[in-house]
Amino acid sequence: MPLIECVPNFSEGRDRTIIQSLGDAIEAVQGVHLLDVSSDYDHHRTVMTFIGEPEPILEAAYQAIVTASTMIDLEKHQGVHPRIGATDVVPFIPLRDASLSDCVELAKTLGELVGDELGLPVYLYEAAATRSERQNLADVRRGGYEKLKEEIHLPHRKPDFGPATLGIAGACVIGARQPLIAFNAYLDTKDVNIAQEIATEIRESGGGLPFVKALGLLVNGQAQVSMNVIDFRQTSLFTIMSALHELVKKYNVTVTHTELVGLIPQSALVNTALSYLQLPIQSRELILESRIGAETGNFKEIPFE
Amino acid sequence: MPLIECVPNFSEGRDRTIIQSLGDAIEAVQGVHLLDVSSDYDHHRTVMTFIGEPEPILEAAYQAIVTASTMIDLEKHQGVHPRIGATDVVPFIPLRDASLSDCVELAKTLGELVGDELGLPVYLYEAAATRSERQNLADVRRGGYEKLKEEIHLPHRKPDFGPATLGIAGACVIGARQPLIAFNAYLDTKDVNIAQEIATEIRESGGGLPFVKALGLLVNGQAQVSMNVIDFRQTSLFTIMSALHELVKKYNVTVTHTELVGLIPQSALVNTALSYLQLPIQSRELILESRIGAETGNFKEIPFE
Repeated sequence: MPLIECVPNFSEGRDRTIIQSLGDAIEAVQGVHLLDVSSDYDHHRTVMTFIGEPEPILEAAYQAIVTASTMIDLEKHQGVHPRIGATDVVPFIPLRDASLSDCVELAKTLGELVGDELGLPVYLYEAAATRSERQNLADVRRGGYEKLKEEIHLPHRKPDFGPATLGIAGACVIGARQPLIAFNAYLDTKDVNIAQEIATEIRESGGGLPFVKALGLLVNGQAQVSMNVIDFRQTSLFTIMSALHELVKKYNVTVTHTELVGLIPQSALVNTALSYLQLPIQSRELILESRIGAETGNFKEIPFE
Repeated sequence: MPLIECVPNFSEGRDRTIIQSLGDAIEAVQGVHLLDVSSDYDHHRTVMTFIGEPEPILEAAYQAIVTASTMIDLEKHQGVHPRIGATDVVPFIPLRDASLSDCVELAKTLGELVGDELGLPVYLYEAAATRSERQNLADVRRGGYEKLKEEIHLPHRKPDFGPATLGIAGACVIGARQPLIAFNAYLDTKDVNIAQEIATEIRESGGGLPFVKALGLLVNGQAQVSMNVIDFRQTSLFTIMSALHELVKKYNVTVTHTELVGLIPQSALVNTALSYLQLPIQSRELILESRIGAETGNFKEIPFE
């Protein structure tokens, strides 16, 4: 049975009634499991994570977009995070027995539905992008809702689906990608410049590690290297942490602690452990729970505590 | 449902017919899953790993002991590994919804059965031990079958169950313990003395890490620190690897690679990754598969490849 994850980002992080309605719209669809809801007041944004098979996932995503388009008004929205729509971004992610191209198909089906039925402009991004300049979400969203309102009639901003006009629900960016890991490292300094320099060195665009995006921020008075790992199977957290250890030495600081934002695939952690312990990758086959799962179909983890 | 693991060690690692019969005796019991069979020709020894609920686990262990006692002759057995019986050691390990004392009960029930029904001398060890000097398996087994034959009539070697006489099936050591991790590190040297010195420094008995046993060996011409981790929840693989990194520096060698012998609980790896990545222990709750498992009861891991 194919298992797909969907992680829509909504431009609402404050009104509990609206957030509840969005979650309800998703959970009302049979076969869909809502795993996580994270709202951020400052960013005025909510990220929901849900899973299921392709058909219910598509239906739940559509119902959430319908709800957001009737309850969220971009004309009134203010927040530090760049956004162009009530349902700002909808990525589909293959988890099991599904490929990235299955998710591209889902993205296109949803995009057509949203464009035709709801009359919202839809842009396809990442693996679903129809133009190379739309692969990167930051490029699609640059200038936000305000800029898009001025430019949507121009050829280079023509939507992939729906009309080239913008209402108060804005536009919707829909696409397909691999699971993303948001991993932040805090440094023992208040100097945001150090975090920014380390971020520049570690990220792909600065000639650092492939599949890594990074920013230097100041969070509660502490410098933070905020990273997005686009494909943890290509660049592992072990590789990233090792590189970070080298970089902090160079800038004469240390990593005090780290954090994850959102969920992480277990194999990203297991693989990091194998690398650190210098165990061969085949050691994965020696995991007790995998053996139990293969025999009994029950992979529940043996408790750590 | 309580889930128990049983890992009997048999004094037969060469005759495929006998090894097959031992596995058949275990698998014939409904509700038992045989996860792993590891035979070693030089050690002339086979380790089987099986799981199930208490009642079938007890029955399968008993049937395997019956089979071994009729097929294996300790008078003819030669091998580099210390042993005192055809079924040499039988530990019960609590995996889920079971405690160590549940496993102590199982060990005593099996011990009584083997002593009374099969007439084999039984020694209880580890958490099931009735005397402190029998907690450590190495102490119970010291001198092997040959020494036990001479001494079994002496008070300090009186069995916990069964007669104080030794037949050709030898005796049986039965007990309860936590999951054990067998973890070996190879060094870039042929000098076994270095492995032995590092082993002495890292193990509990040498004043090193608690719950760690270690030996220095020469394996295929390469020095190896061979370790048993008795309780990975108390002393993690991360702690062991970090200590090893310090020690190899001191002796001016490096770890070329490591290996596991037998299975490993997944949380031992996950916890090592969290430590290396400096993530808080609560990050375990952010594992995608755990969330999916909590929602759907299906914890199957998302593929790494």
